[in-house]
Amino acid sequence: MLKLFYAPGTCALASRIALEDAGADYEITRIDFSKQEQRSPDYLKINPKGRVPALVTERGILTETPAILVYIAQAFPDANLAPFDDAFAFAELQAFNSYIASTVHVNHAHGCRGSRWANDHSSFDDMKQKVPETMTAAMELIEFDMFEGPWVMGETYTIADPYLFTMARWLEGDGVDINVLPRIKDHMERMSMLESVKRAMAEPV
Amino acid sequence: MLKLFYAPGTCALASRIALEDAGADYEITRIDFSKQEQRSPDYLKINPKGRVPALVTERGILTETPAILVYIAQAFPDANLAPFDDAFAFAELQAFNSYIASTVHVNHAHGCRGSRWANDHSSFDDMKQKVPETMTAAMELIEFDMFEGPWVMGETYTIADPYLFTMARWLEGDGVDINVLPRIKDHMERMSMLESVKRAMAEPV
Repeated sequence: MLKLFYAPGTCALASRIALEDAGADYEITRIDFSKQEQRSPDYLKINPKGRVPALVTERGILTETPAILVYIAQAFPDANLAPFDDAFAFAELQAFNSYIASTVHVNHAHGCRGSRWANDHSSFDDMKQKVPETMTAAMELIEFDMFEGPWVMGETYTIADPYLFTMARWLEGDGVDINVLPRIKDHMERMSMLESVKRAMAEPV
Repeated sequence: MLKLFYAPGTCALASRIALEDAGADYEITRIDFSKQEQRSPDYLKINPKGRVPALVTERGILTETPAILVYIAQAFPDANLAPFDDAFAFAELQAFNSYIASTVHVNHAHGCRGSRWANDHSSFDDMKQKVPETMTAAMELIEFDMFEGPWVMGETYTIADPYLFTMARWLEGDGVDINVLPRIKDHMERMSMLESVKRAMAEPV
């Protein structure tokens, strides 16, 4: 059975939703960030990066959300979560998810994780103050240039949808007014009503 | 014919090497960063992100190195640049490239592109000073945990190899002593001798 190492409020939500979308048989192990469990010796054996998500498969452990999402889509083809038979459409999907990982998520991380890239508290404050601007700019590019509608990639729901939804849930905390992003706001509301999303966000994890 | 928008010294080198590896028929358009051409109105129509690489295909334009690399591998299957028929192996390859894009490249960018995430010159200096530490740590994770050898993913050369090579070429400028990374150093030296890499790095672009 697949096992997902997970923490609430993190990008691991995207993988959890995709597992629900796929109808996968999986279990969750919660990593408690308030106790710094992601840096415990036991967890670093699972993922030496000290991050979530990590997905344990029968072949080994996978990390990095874009990789995990594609793995879930490929391992559960009946769920039709990615267009593997169309190189261009698959590349557009990958470009979207790569943009989330290396730009949107990175912008967000400068709000609370400035110590990854600097040492001085004045720098952390400076970075934190810029997050509303950088997150708005990154999301406006999605809103106006990348989002096809009604789902991220167009008529068909894909693994890009739970990833965008996971980022959109961070916007209020990042000081972004989601009302300037009406398509992303509508997407978030529709995602929230999906049974797979409700299950992925249910307690006790 | 494919067209790659490219600038020397950028991560676009990885895509150019992969095009050579694939035996693709392609042309190069150089974007002159010294003239800020990446932010010109004409180029922003190609890539609204104002970055390279961008790959123009007959179906449309692709951005984001991990997506472009997989596209090249999928469009030229005879070159055998990615294990599409093995979901786990493909996910491991994707996890490697995603780590390069969202951690290694991001660490590097804090050396000269601090204004993406902060406003004060003191913050830029602070970020720049930390680059040798963050790049060393990220590359040590590759050296000791991720690099299979002799190629990144093991016995078979894949699209992970030009991407690692492109990052390794930045290490000296980032203040990293590559001698603490002997497998990455050896990989860089072997990559430099490949005909595809020599062609990709040849003038006049």
